[in-house]
Amino acid sequence: MTGRLLIVDDAPTNRIVLKAKLAAAGYDPVVASDTAIALGLLRTSTPDLVVIDLSARDGLALIGALRARAATAQLPVVIMANEGPPGLRADYLRAGADEVLAKPVDDQHLLALIRSHMRHIALAVADPTGQYLQGLGEGPASFQPQGQVALITARPETALRLKRDLSAHCRDRITALPPDEALACLTRPGHAPDAVVIEVDLPEAGGGLRLMSELQSRATTCHARFVLLVSAGTQVLASMAYDLGAHALIGPETSAVETALRLSRLIGQKQAADRRRASVQDSLRLAAHDPLTGLYNRRYIDQQLVTAVQDGARDGKGFAVLVVDLDRFKRVNDNWGHPAGDAVLVAVAERMGQSLRRGDMLARMGGEEFLAILPGASLADARAIGERLCHSIEALPIAVPQGHSIPVTVSVGIAACLPCPLRAPVDQAREVVEHADRALLYAKSHGRNRVTVFRSAA
Amino acid sequence: MTGRLLIVDDAPTNRIVLKAKLAAAGYDPVVASDTAIALGLLRTSTPDLVVIDLSARDGLALIGALRARAATAQLPVVIMANEGPPGLRADYLRAGADEVLAKPVDDQHLLALIRSHMRHIALAVADPTGQYLQGLGEGPASFQPQGQVALITARPETALRLKRDLSAHCRDRITALPPDEALACLTRPGHAPDAVVIEVDLPEAGGGLRLMSELQSRATTCHARFVLLVSAGTQVLASMAYDLGAHALIGPETSAVETALRLSRLIGQKQAADRRRASVQDSLRLAAHDPLTGLYNRRYIDQQLVTAVQDGARDGKGFAVLVVDLDRFKRVNDNWGHPAGDAVLVAVAERMGQSLRRGDMLARMGGEEFLAILPGASLADARAIGERLCHSIEALPIAVPQGHSIPVTVSVGIAACLPCPLRAPVDQAREVVEHADRALLYAKSHGRNRVTVFRSAA
Repeated sequence: MTGRLLIVDDAPTNRIVLKAKLAAAGYDPVVASDTAIALGLLRTSTPDLVVIDLSARDGLALIGALRARAATAQLPVVIMANEGPPGLRADYLRAGADEVLAKPVDDQHLLALIRSHMRHIALAVADPTGQYLQGLGEGPASFQPQGQVALITARPETALRLKRDLSAHCRDRITALPPDEALACLTRPGHAPDAVVIEVDLPEAGGGLRLMSELQSRATTCHARFVLLVSAGTQVLASMAYDLGAHALIGPETSAVETALRLSRLIGQKQAADRRRASVQDSLRLAAHDPLTGLYNRRYIDQQLVTAVQDGARDGKGFAVLVVDLDRFKRVNDNWGHPAGDAVLVAVAERMGQSLRRGDMLARMGGEEFLAILPGASLADARAIGERLCHSIEALPIAVPQGHSIPVTVSVGIAACLPCPLRAPVDQAREVVEHADRALLYAKSHGRNRVTVFRSAA
Repeated sequence: MTGRLLIVDDAPTNRIVLKAKLAAAGYDPVVASDTAIALGLLRTSTPDLVVIDLSARDGLALIGALRARAATAQLPVVIMANEGPPGLRADYLRAGADEVLAKPVDDQHLLALIRSHMRHIALAVADPTGQYLQGLGEGPASFQPQGQVALITARPETALRLKRDLSAHCRDRITALPPDEALACLTRPGHAPDAVVIEVDLPEAGGGLRLMSELQSRATTCHARFVLLVSAGTQVLASMAYDLGAHALIGPETSAVETALRLSRLIGQKQAADRRRASVQDSLRLAAHDPLTGLYNRRYIDQQLVTAVQDGARDGKGFAVLVVDLDRFKRVNDNWGHPAGDAVLVAVAERMGQSLRRGDMLARMGGEEFLAILPGASLADARAIGERLCHSIEALPIAVPQGHSIPVTVSVGIAACLPCPLRAPVDQAREVVEHADRALLYAKSHGRNRVTVFRSAA
């Protein structure tokens, strides 16, 4: 997959030169000479990034049109602009540009910037969560929560001045930190910043770039957006900064309002990504859990059984499996209705959970059948736990919605597995469950409300 | 969250100095003077990384013990070793070390290496998929599929020699590529490499590091493992290479067997990560789909409705909703049994899908109720689609497992939504479904097998 770039430039020569340069860098560039042609191209396909070099009026109009359409609202847009009237850069950013480069644009800088956006896109495309969860908690938040911004500069005065200037233009919470305390402060749980502004020229060797790499290597700060404050004449450094993961570069000449606009956009994107991760987490929880009881579901526990065999084959440790089935559960549903049946399942799941040890895993396999994995448990351990579980269910009738209490019992089948490295883990997992099922059948046919342990003929 | 590092070093002075250096770099180091103490510490808590400086015998024994325990089998291990007998470095790697650094170890190199491992760990910890999917297709593959390795060097002779030397020690498929063709070759779909070996000193400015950054920015290559071939005396470059995302560095003096061992370990890790992503994709598909019909489920379509309102509010475009319910479905289940009922649901889902347009979304809401979102459709469009759908169900009786064919009809309720930016999207989404439900009720009470359109009183 090559990157598709749309170049919108009203000067024919520039268009041709830029197209050739980007093609040479391995991209697939498409060109448009004005806003109408660009919007026409965008109707049939969406590029990965748009580079715009138009008059201020046309450029702003095109960004506005891109941001108004759902399909292109989040598309990265890079503006190449002549020195215009004061405030023009801020206008571009306010309209939704991701970056405004002053012409003449350094080729390496432009390529590094494009690469940086492409890297974020590549990770999003390759991310399996991207495809199925468009729309799950994804849309632009109608209200952007206050962001946390950390400022790290060599001299405290710089940070304090920047903080004062920024405070007039943004409502995010800004904290100034000295370089030597930044890592410790920002990686404390609960202090995760949304954006970090780092001065490149920190006293230590490699200073700002190294601090950014350190922060990117810690769990609390790896999702933050990084803005680097660079001095003039650092083109090579700029390109390196993007490749190291910087999201934006600002200079001493960048106005506070411009910095505030960039921070606001970056914070919005970071918070949207946070929401998406949270939503993925919900979905995965759903995929692994039974919605009624909150226990693991059959699919998840089947995989865990295989993992238990694999771990056991490596560690030389066995595990026990309990199969638990409610006795005469159909009668509950028939006599008291499904809501009562559901209440019984929920109560039984809770009591079973309390009978198990820390580290044991419990799943609802469907209907009124449950399965527990007891890592490291012997048959004697498992029997004791099974007896405790049986007793905890029988001991107290279960209250159901209609105000009645229903006496319930369960039958339990137990089998153990001592994993063997030479046999397929899937077969061993299947076998131990079959053994426990056989033991359960015996318990059912010998009066129910009891525990039976499978013992192999060998 | 600071990184917890375990230092195992039998020389007291070295231990103290290294601990102080790592603490100064913002880590939380714990020290052990021998294997027994180290294993004792590991029993109570697992660090993020282990640095080992012991005699060859003790070092190898400790790595072996770490790799044999499930809890530490994947823990990153860095060895600091004196120049030992030939083959010692390979022995360490074969035992499962991630990196072997020759003493004296450059501090910046060690810190960059630790940072590189910490970054991968941080991303894994912060990744919501990590927590719920341990064990879903995760375990070490009992059989490692052949890996794809790309070699990119300045001179073709270097690549060919490396390829020949490596081929004697690994069964992965190795392809040598010239630098100017590498990007185009490797980013073609279906050519994704598992590992890429890049010579740092490629002819262009920035050469190898820039090519690595380019490859990391493309979807097909962003998950590859990167090994950089560096010349002697490039300490600063090495540290930069790790921060730019290199997974390992090799030099001209690195033996082929050592390079092969590193590649094999990196390829194994990359393939395990690929399996995990595939498994996450499965789980997310499950979380968004109805298992019986393969259509979207209620949760997913509810979110999509809100997204449709949000998009519409921005674009000024409306959409229509169809609520579809099977007529007298209970009779099918009662007369023919649940397998027949399921067969009917599957067949109806398929015919409905064929009646819709590309880009429409169809979900099973539960039981015999379905819902479709038709973006951009007017009420007239939606009615035409609804009529077509009704007809396609009625036209042909549905074959069920017992060999019979059952005549089935559906009723359809339709409503349209022209999103309003001033109202909460959730409320508008709820409203359009209520309207469609009311229309469905009317269709049901007026003879079934028909389409009714909701028209607001306004």
